[in-house]
Amino acid sequence: MARLVLKFGGTSVADIERIRVVARHVKREVDAGHEVAVVVSAMAGTTNQLVAWCKDASRLHDAREYDAVVSAGEQITSGLLAIALSEMGVPARSWLGWQIPIRTSNVHGAARIEKIETDALEKAFAEGRVAVVAGFQGLADNNRIATLGRGGSDTSAVALAAALGADRCDIYTDVDGVYTTDPRMTPRARKLEKVTYEEMLEMASQGAKVLQTRSVGLAMVHQVRTLVRSSFDDPDDAALVAASRTNTGLPGTLVCDEEEIVEQELVTGIAYSRDEAKITLVKVADKPGIAAAIFGPLAEAGINVDMIVQNVSEGDAMTDLTFTVSHAELDKARAVVEAASADIGYQQLIADGDVAKISVIGVGMRSHTGVAQKMFHALADRGINLHVISTSEIKVSVLIDAEYTELAVRALHTAYGLDGDTAA
Amino acid sequence: MARLVLKFGGTSVADIERIRVVARHVKREVDAGHEVAVVVSAMAGTTNQLVAWCKDASRLHDAREYDAVVSAGEQITSGLLAIALSEMGVPARSWLGWQIPIRTSNVHGAARIEKIETDALEKAFAEGRVAVVAGFQGLADNNRIATLGRGGSDTSAVALAAALGADRCDIYTDVDGVYTTDPRMTPRARKLEKVTYEEMLEMASQGAKVLQTRSVGLAMVHQVRTLVRSSFDDPDDAALVAASRTNTGLPGTLVCDEEEIVEQELVTGIAYSRDEAKITLVKVADKPGIAAAIFGPLAEAGINVDMIVQNVSEGDAMTDLTFTVSHAELDKARAVVEAASADIGYQQLIADGDVAKISVIGVGMRSHTGVAQKMFHALADRGINLHVISTSEIKVSVLIDAEYTELAVRALHTAYGLDGDTAA
Repeated sequence: MARLVLKFGGTSVADIERIRVVARHVKREVDAGHEVAVVVSAMAGTTNQLVAWCKDASRLHDAREYDAVVSAGEQITSGLLAIALSEMGVPARSWLGWQIPIRTSNVHGAARIEKIETDALEKAFAEGRVAVVAGFQGLADNNRIATLGRGGSDTSAVALAAALGADRCDIYTDVDGVYTTDPRMTPRARKLEKVTYEEMLEMASQGAKVLQTRSVGLAMVHQVRTLVRSSFDDPDDAALVAASRTNTGLPGTLVCDEEEIVEQELVTGIAYSRDEAKITLVKVADKPGIAAAIFGPLAEAGINVDMIVQNVSEGDAMTDLTFTVSHAELDKARAVVEAASADIGYQQLIADGDVAKISVIGVGMRSHTGVAQKMFHALADRGINLHVISTSEIKVSVLIDAEYTELAVRALHTAYGLDGDTAA
Repeated sequence: MARLVLKFGGTSVADIERIRVVARHVKREVDAGHEVAVVVSAMAGTTNQLVAWCKDASRLHDAREYDAVVSAGEQITSGLLAIALSEMGVPARSWLGWQIPIRTSNVHGAARIEKIETDALEKAFAEGRVAVVAGFQGLADNNRIATLGRGGSDTSAVALAAALGADRCDIYTDVDGVYTTDPRMTPRARKLEKVTYEEMLEMASQGAKVLQTRSVGLAMVHQVRTLVRSSFDDPDDAALVAASRTNTGLPGTLVCDEEEIVEQELVTGIAYSRDEAKITLVKVADKPGIAAAIFGPLAEAGINVDMIVQNVSEGDAMTDLTFTVSHAELDKARAVVEAASADIGYQQLIADGDVAKISVIGVGMRSHTGVAQKMFHALADRGINLHVISTSEIKVSVLIDAEYTELAVRALHTAYGLDGDTAA
């Protein structure tokens, strides 16, 4: 017997027919003898509708009221899934954030889970009941509902798995696992059987949208083994039933500790993001305080700066400085910098929204040299120019012209030996 | 300064535009210096959708889960109205049933309000905040959401007004008051300025759909002065603003105690219901226990019997017995009686679904004779045959062929001097 937390997203619970499929997945795990808690999102489209109503009622709405409105979506799904499970003979009840309670900070709309009291759920397990938990929501200490921000149901599931000491957290989604790169980019993309928390974290933050970055960070901190799998599998497939019974041969991709991965690849995946924009300030004075003069105003405006590169200045105490922001914030960032131009002092501002970031990720880099070198060579061979380079312990990212995105991803996928048999 | 509870139904909060109109009604009362709590229903259509999902998930769904799902509708509206009020500069916050709490019985889906704790709301009033309360819901002592059954938001409003010692409960609806009879039946129908609790209770249970019967009963018990008024009035109309300031000259119909009504009419209104069916048992043995043999099985089958008449038996110890049930339950009632025919013993069963009940209502009847006599004459003059007659202290009801409904209502409306100037 294992203790499992299963999480189903919006498309997996989009209507009653899909909710019945979810119930069959849950039933399979219960029939295999496991203790099961299920975390659900709102039905696809519901949250968007609720958010739109709040915005329509007031552009500057009170975040506490927003939370009361928006949390209704997951409340509805949790009740409906409990009903569908009971209909199949699986004892179940729904739990809202305030009933457990899942205690959060008071930052309404983007709250953090602080503590999950597990007594009630342990009692439910002891009685053989499935706990269906409304994701994305908790109870702030003002006795009001607080939501965790977009994608928060992944975070709810991982936090619940950590609090319950679950053996595994299964994230059922509309893809069947984590790939070496986006399969839409190349047919040679290969599904990974396992990936480390660190790699998944880099992939999530570098543009792969399978898991929410925050939930991966939480899984890493609490060592919650997290399985990314498809909610579109036939729940009663014989191989799935056998896998549930033995907890081996499971489909999907397991996000786990490095130690659980026997043969670690040098590079695990290639991520890309087209949501990038570059600003270059030409001939900035190379003096103390210049970075603060530029990035202070940007931070105050709530603009997230990703990569920063400063060229070595020569003799004239002038330097060129380049940084990247998300594409959506380019115009705002440009305006902020231009407003501060007197303080900063630069000759010219060059903005470029037509760029992409390509990242090579792998914990194997820690113990191997030459990974970055191979990347630069592979891209140079295709005539791809690098605007900015940024590295971390397990990642190398480069900024290139957007039109080369596919070419770069495919070249790197081949260069690091990630190509699967599909296209052999 | 007065303390007011305002209630807005589903059509009054059908979309954000309508919710903004509601907010303006609330603002008018706040600007007049009143302490205001607002009870809201779900947006029109929402509850039906949620109920349909529950039924689709399982025909025999757990009522506790049904409540978790269905109560989301009022939760959404309460948050949205709080947002719309804040946008207009009116300090407000939403309150869910479990937050106040409104304590109810554990009969999920049809719970009764047992106690409303008012400390939190009193504090909100003291801080000058409008309390926007989700109607139709409370907290059962199993720490789960319980709903009050259909139309429950009226009950929420009246119960809240009673608990808060409110000066008045304003029910904003899609009609502008209570009429002497259904205005669709005759253009001579006249809006009543005031009506007693007892009369309103009879009107509600005799087919007038302005207020939910249960909420009128509650208003009567707790002496909650209840104003039925239109949510389609212009909230900023000068006359309405003046009326709010002085609490005089208010639009709509006030449901109140008899003592508040100076000139009591003999008859206040004519109600009708087409949702009636009649069953006559011919030649039933006139012996002790016969009523139990007939109505016992009907009660066990959950069928509500309204009027019952038994003819005087002569010599042969045989009698004819007639009773009425709602139209929807005619077939079921017939089957129940036929199944028990051996125990009952009758010669023939005659069922008739083509009947209507006409009721004349007025507390003035208590002190005046001849009211029923006038009714019988007026109907006889039009050649309308009476199948069943039933009377209470303040009401006379007759069952007639359905085709005479309009004719009977109009004749009685004139006979009791209720006709307004409209058609003069």
